[in-house]
Amino acid sequence: MRAAIRRGASIVVDECELPPLQDGQVRVKTLHCGICGSDLHAVHHFEPFIDYGRRAGLLTGRIDPARDVVLGHEFCAEIAEFGPGCDKSLKEGAAVCAFALTFDEKGPEGVGWSNRYPGGYAEYMVLTESMLVPVTNGCPSERAALSEPMAVAVHAVNKADHGDSAYMVVGCGPIGLAIVAELKSRGLGPVVAVDFVAERRAVAEILGADIVIDPAQGDPHAHWTSLEVPYGPVVYPRTASRARRAVLFECVGVPGMLNRLIDVAPRNAQIIVAGVCMAPDTIEPSMAINKELDVRFSMAFSADEFRQTVHRICEGELDVTPMISRIIGLDEVPATFDELLDNPRGAKILVDPRR
Amino acid sequence: MRAAIRRGASIVVDECELPPLQDGQVRVKTLHCGICGSDLHAVHHFEPFIDYGRRAGLLTGRIDPARDVVLGHEFCAEIAEFGPGCDKSLKEGAAVCAFALTFDEKGPEGVGWSNRYPGGYAEYMVLTESMLVPVTNGCPSERAALSEPMAVAVHAVNKADHGDSAYMVVGCGPIGLAIVAELKSRGLGPVVAVDFVAERRAVAEILGADIVIDPAQGDPHAHWTSLEVPYGPVVYPRTASRARRAVLFECVGVPGMLNRLIDVAPRNAQIIVAGVCMAPDTIEPSMAINKELDVRFSMAFSADEFRQTVHRICEGELDVTPMISRIIGLDEVPATFDELLDNPRGAKILVDPRR
Repeated sequence: MRAAIRRGASIVVDECELPPLQDGQVRVKTLHCGICGSDLHAVHHFEPFIDYGRRAGLLTGRIDPARDVVLGHEFCAEIAEFGPGCDKSLKEGAAVCAFALTFDEKGPEGVGWSNRYPGGYAEYMVLTESMLVPVTNGCPSERAALSEPMAVAVHAVNKADHGDSAYMVVGCGPIGLAIVAELKSRGLGPVVAVDFVAERRAVAEILGADIVIDPAQGDPHAHWTSLEVPYGPVVYPRTASRARRAVLFECVGVPGMLNRLIDVAPRNAQIIVAGVCMAPDTIEPSMAINKELDVRFSMAFSADEFRQTVHRICEGELDVTPMISRIIGLDEVPATFDELLDNPRGAKILVDPRR
Repeated sequence: MRAAIRRGASIVVDECELPPLQDGQVRVKTLHCGICGSDLHAVHHFEPFIDYGRRAGLLTGRIDPARDVVLGHEFCAEIAEFGPGCDKSLKEGAAVCAFALTFDEKGPEGVGWSNRYPGGYAEYMVLTESMLVPVTNGCPSERAALSEPMAVAVHAVNKADHGDSAYMVVGCGPIGLAIVAELKSRGLGPVVAVDFVAERRAVAEILGADIVIDPAQGDPHAHWTSLEVPYGPVVYPRTASRARRAVLFECVGVPGMLNRLIDVAPRNAQIIVAGVCMAPDTIEPSMAINKELDVRFSMAFSADEFRQTVHRICEGELDVTPMISRIIGLDEVPATFDELLDNPRGAKILVDPRR
């Protein structure tokens, strides 16, 4: 079958093999698969990515970067064939999303994060039946494929405390936009969305952001006062505060960004770190202490968060359509990766290997 | 009156003046005043200390480091004279603790963090009557003087979530020890206390630490398994975890320490940062993300936390006596600062300006 393969520090389109089905596994045909920022990291920063995974005990820590990897973990697919020992509670041809994970005689293994199991930039994948989540309500596969990044956003939003809060989402790539969508779908706000790219700010606006800011046109933290978040000097004696609290989502993931947020955050703010910075980064702990900041690092999601997100998208409770900027075929993947690495614009790009 | 004065990058004992009493102010005689890590920072790192304070809108940001400052904000004192407009609800001679803050016609001003108002390394101070908290139950002033650092510890412990948690206190200087004391007084545990200095480990043990570790003798994080905190690879599919959670208190405050804790922390741990690192510091955000850590920066305390802490110490609910290592006179302050800067040992050193 054909696939866009990570080989060395680039992506090539070539033929590859699917492992034979084992107990409880199914073969699925990929319908749509999103390109994720982590996939981009895997091209040029794969060694540190794998090393951090290994040190934290994640499955990504087992990847051999010298061997081929077919990336792609944000997919919607169609059941093509059941392996031995399957329940077949879903039918052949059923559309499914899934936790990008399969189990074989060696234990759990990532799908799209593996030298053995190709991800969604291939025509077919091998998944584990018990991990499948059915796509219901006739939801188009391009929308259902957004379940994975939306679940990442749901998890990040769940990390924050939601009292009387004002939100600032810094970086409106796919995760930042998904966070804007999730906040607004829960009726939370005001939400300030910040990005240098006009196209991304426009999507943030469609998704319901209350204020949209180009940081080149002025300092985002000048807005705290209009959002009724106290920003001035400390008032003494300090008592338990009932003031509106700021929640900042860091969705950029480049060195210096976390400290920039520490610098602009109001006192007692929460910073939810959803952007993955692959390099060591410098912060000023004294500023974070003087403001008593709360920095919560967020990754992935729970099984429940994923299932519920698929359900909400399929049932139309969460409209992800504005986040889809383009659908491409496998042949366009190499050039699109180059483009995204050089000059990230737009929101989610989906790969349709059937094209 | 005599005082130990911060002048240039050293401490000298000299005469100094007290400002005249204004509306609502009282003159108090200092009984005991603790030496705090922040006072040590003020000798060699005063410029960045003041700059961070200024940027965060704190009163410390107004200090002119080129002019004299009498440090000392952890005090117990005795009312010596009432200024105009006082309620006199306490009597002359009454022992008091106080928020290290006074108010005059220019607004609020730190006590011990000011070019105008001397702190507790002076024979007398000017305080604001409404900020006084009475020392009750005949509590000795050397114990009551521990109220300030104990309130810092209470605030840091209040920052953490206390479900089924295991605690690691890294650094057993006064704040680390006070955190051990506070955790154990609330019946929380197990508490692991970590310090290179045998004398500090011995105090941690007296205060009730369940396990005491010299990091030179082995890796503290080897203990997570015996504490029933999951430390191995992630188990998939991840579900809402009911596993025992780790809470780490960073009470060292030197560059590299926060990242060391990020490295040894188990997944989903909370790191409460109570140690004040005065320099920019480098962390690996990817490790914090892969483990989904929660880093909460803690400073000072609320008015309620302070009042309650004074009360608990006075009523014998919190025994701080094991934390007092030495009581010195003003003449010994310069040499003691040099000693603490070169080779911090022991726990809390108190200054008694009457000696």
